[in-house]
Amino acid sequence: MRDFLPVDVRRRQFVIDVVRRTYERYGFEPLETPALENIETLTGKYGDEGNKLIFKVLRRGEHESSGETDLALRYDLTVPLARVVAEHRGRLPKFFKRYQIQPVWRADRPARGRFREFYQCDVDAIGSTSPLVEVELCAAVSDILRELGFEDFTLRLNHRAVLTGLLIAAGVDESRHGDALVAIDKLDKIGREGVVREFSERQIAPAAADRLLEAFTAAEPNAATLDRLRAFVTDPEGLSGIENLAQIVALSAPTSAGSALRLDPSLARGLSYYTGAIMEIAVGDLPGSLGGGGRYDGLIGMFSGESIPACGFSLGLERILVVMTDRNMFPSVASASGPQVLVTIFEDRDPARTAEAERQSLALAADLRRAGLRVELYPEADKLGKQFKYASAREAVYAAVLGGDEIARGEVTLKRLSTGSQESVPRSEVASRIRAQLN
Amino acid sequence: MRDFLPVDVRRRQFVIDVVRRTYERYGFEPLETPALENIETLTGKYGDEGNKLIFKVLRRGEHESSGETDLALRYDLTVPLARVVAEHRGRLPKFFKRYQIQPVWRADRPARGRFREFYQCDVDAIGSTSPLVEVELCAAVSDILRELGFEDFTLRLNHRAVLTGLLIAAGVDESRHGDALVAIDKLDKIGREGVVREFSERQIAPAAADRLLEAFTAAEPNAATLDRLRAFVTDPEGLSGIENLAQIVALSAPTSAGSALRLDPSLARGLSYYTGAIMEIAVGDLPGSLGGGGRYDGLIGMFSGESIPACGFSLGLERILVVMTDRNMFPSVASASGPQVLVTIFEDRDPARTAEAERQSLALAADLRRAGLRVELYPEADKLGKQFKYASAREAVYAAVLGGDEIARGEVTLKRLSTGSQESVPRSEVASRIRAQLN
Repeated sequence: MRDFLPVDVRRRQFVIDVVRRTYERYGFEPLETPALENIETLTGKYGDEGNKLIFKVLRRGEHESSGETDLALRYDLTVPLARVVAEHRGRLPKFFKRYQIQPVWRADRPARGRFREFYQCDVDAIGSTSPLVEVELCAAVSDILRELGFEDFTLRLNHRAVLTGLLIAAGVDESRHGDALVAIDKLDKIGREGVVREFSERQIAPAAADRLLEAFTAAEPNAATLDRLRAFVTDPEGLSGIENLAQIVALSAPTSAGSALRLDPSLARGLSYYTGAIMEIAVGDLPGSLGGGGRYDGLIGMFSGESIPACGFSLGLERILVVMTDRNMFPSVASASGPQVLVTIFEDRDPARTAEAERQSLALAADLRRAGLRVELYPEADKLGKQFKYASAREAVYAAVLGGDEIARGEVTLKRLSTGSQESVPRSEVASRIRAQLN
Repeated sequence: MRDFLPVDVRRRQFVIDVVRRTYERYGFEPLETPALENIETLTGKYGDEGNKLIFKVLRRGEHESSGETDLALRYDLTVPLARVVAEHRGRLPKFFKRYQIQPVWRADRPARGRFREFYQCDVDAIGSTSPLVEVELCAAVSDILRELGFEDFTLRLNHRAVLTGLLIAAGVDESRHGDALVAIDKLDKIGREGVVREFSERQIAPAAADRLLEAFTAAEPNAATLDRLRAFVTDPEGLSGIENLAQIVALSAPTSAGSALRLDPSLARGLSYYTGAIMEIAVGDLPGSLGGGGRYDGLIGMFSGESIPACGFSLGLERILVVMTDRNMFPSVASASGPQVLVTIFEDRDPARTAEAERQSLALAADLRRAGLRVELYPEADKLGKQFKYASAREAVYAAVLGGDEIARGEVTLKRLSTGSQESVPRSEVASRIRAQLN
């Protein structure tokens, strides 16, 4: 788990602000849930492996010594969403579009880019099976990536029923579908031969592997992929999945996702709860993805016992931050940690004059702040050289000096710290002068 | 623990944005620490009562069944700050001014306005003993309260050494100082007679109570209070505390805190770690406070073994939210949860025309979002009446209709939902028309 020092917080905040602003424009609304859930809410929802990674909280008071637990830390944002939908159904709109940006905790062994506390940025649209939902999600995610400065991304798109249809058409026995999907999901990493090898290790007929890999050969326009899928798949669910994909592609054309969407029949995504379209962000030659999502019509109703359609997308905030840092994508404003002006306190031999300098410097700082500037006041009267040195270390743009001479003349000396140049500015014009030069 | 539905999150976000923006203007920088700390970091820091209220996390894996704990949930933001200062000293500026707005967890019995998960808004300036630090903190807090719309607040100000000096001068035995402070702290709630009663119950000479209460009689200008304190207190620490208060009052005069500062010798504040000035926000006739703080020069160095001066202020976010809600202080923008425009999807008997309506509505939504509007697209073609009803329930300002007729004419029908009035607007002018009318 990590401390976020100021420059880290600013960068995170910059990305989160873009995400939030974009989702708001799409009519998604913010939801926040408590860090602690009742332990029964979480156990059994993430498989055996997941269960082991849940942080469990000891009961308090007289029960503390029993070693019993009653609460657990949020493990993802989807189960809490399902609980909220069941608990507050009457207060939520028919189509509940929410985003949620909060930390989750998993007792994983830490590794590069993997932390035990990390933020998830989830967006979900609940209550409709319409493909417009997928289209809007893809458009919102594309807007976010473009605004963050990613130009070389694609949104890989596939459909769970199409994957199943491909396996059926290729003659893979239904009992082996799970194994086959695991192997196919690795196509990117292990290549065609790797997949064939995994198939034979998992006792799937090599002929099926050949037929499937043919269907997965990519790098062609979406229309060509759709045609090839239509020719290959024969079961009704698979065929209706293909038409769902065709609709999503057609409706997305005029949106910001249009040019980024790429049908990719090899996209499987690990999670077993998806029931329809699935999506994943790929960026240039980066391994792994910046996020993904899909339709999962069976999950949200788990606490209410109803069937509630849903489709969502999760952005990998930590990974986005790593890539943006590596690629130097942050604008200077997102990293600017220092003040725009450091107001010094002039030290005079005469304590009364030092006290007057303090008063004047305080008043100047107040004026500059009223003008919207980020201002740090040096907290103590001290040698100017020391205060300039501190201002440079703080990466301030300007240092302002108000000594006895300046006070007498009604002026302020402004020092640009990067160049060392100084100028005298009338007291009443300092704020506007700085603002003009900062732009 | 609570779920925050969209309108709750927006209000919290509104207040947090004001707090953050103001602290940034004062040169404070954001810090975030993990929710989980090593358990040894927290135990023993909050007294016996506090220890019992810490949420402790069970060890994972093979140790799970042992009932042992190794991590605990953040209990406040001060101990994590002290740990960060010790751990990252070399990366932090000499004067480290940080704000931190994060949840903390306490296993208290829930009550009105008291929750087991709640946010703290802490701001602390570390590294200087100068009274300018107190002055800047008071000014920043005053700016925040005014920007949130509080006009009737005072900043009560006192000093721990002055309190001690008063007790010494009144002849209270040093062994009873703690008891006396507890009683004095309640003056607001239990009145003069209550304090006298508590004094006698705690075996403090009634004569001392009389002398003290005389010194606490308030409602006079700060200068008069200072004079009275100077006449009453005799010990050197107490006298230097009075001069410290005099400096804070004088230096604050030209700042936004100037008119709000009120010397109050009865202010004690519970926490024992304060070493200098102490402050507390009082609002009109509200019982309790919206926050408080003070100087605590002994605490921040607890993990590094150094003596590091510090002064801080903590705003009670939950309480501020309760009061602002009760007093109806939120501007409409802070509560606006619905979209500005709901774009409908026209349902035609001819599926091809419905598909065209979907495309046109998607394109319109994209245009309006590019113009910065908050837009929700109805996810499915449906009867218009149903979509209008949904738009009203969502508190949208406008519904936009793009049926076959509108498409043919290159127009959009805009319905203002509050009045039901409709107008036809050329497609290219919709965004500017809405923006103009929203302002």
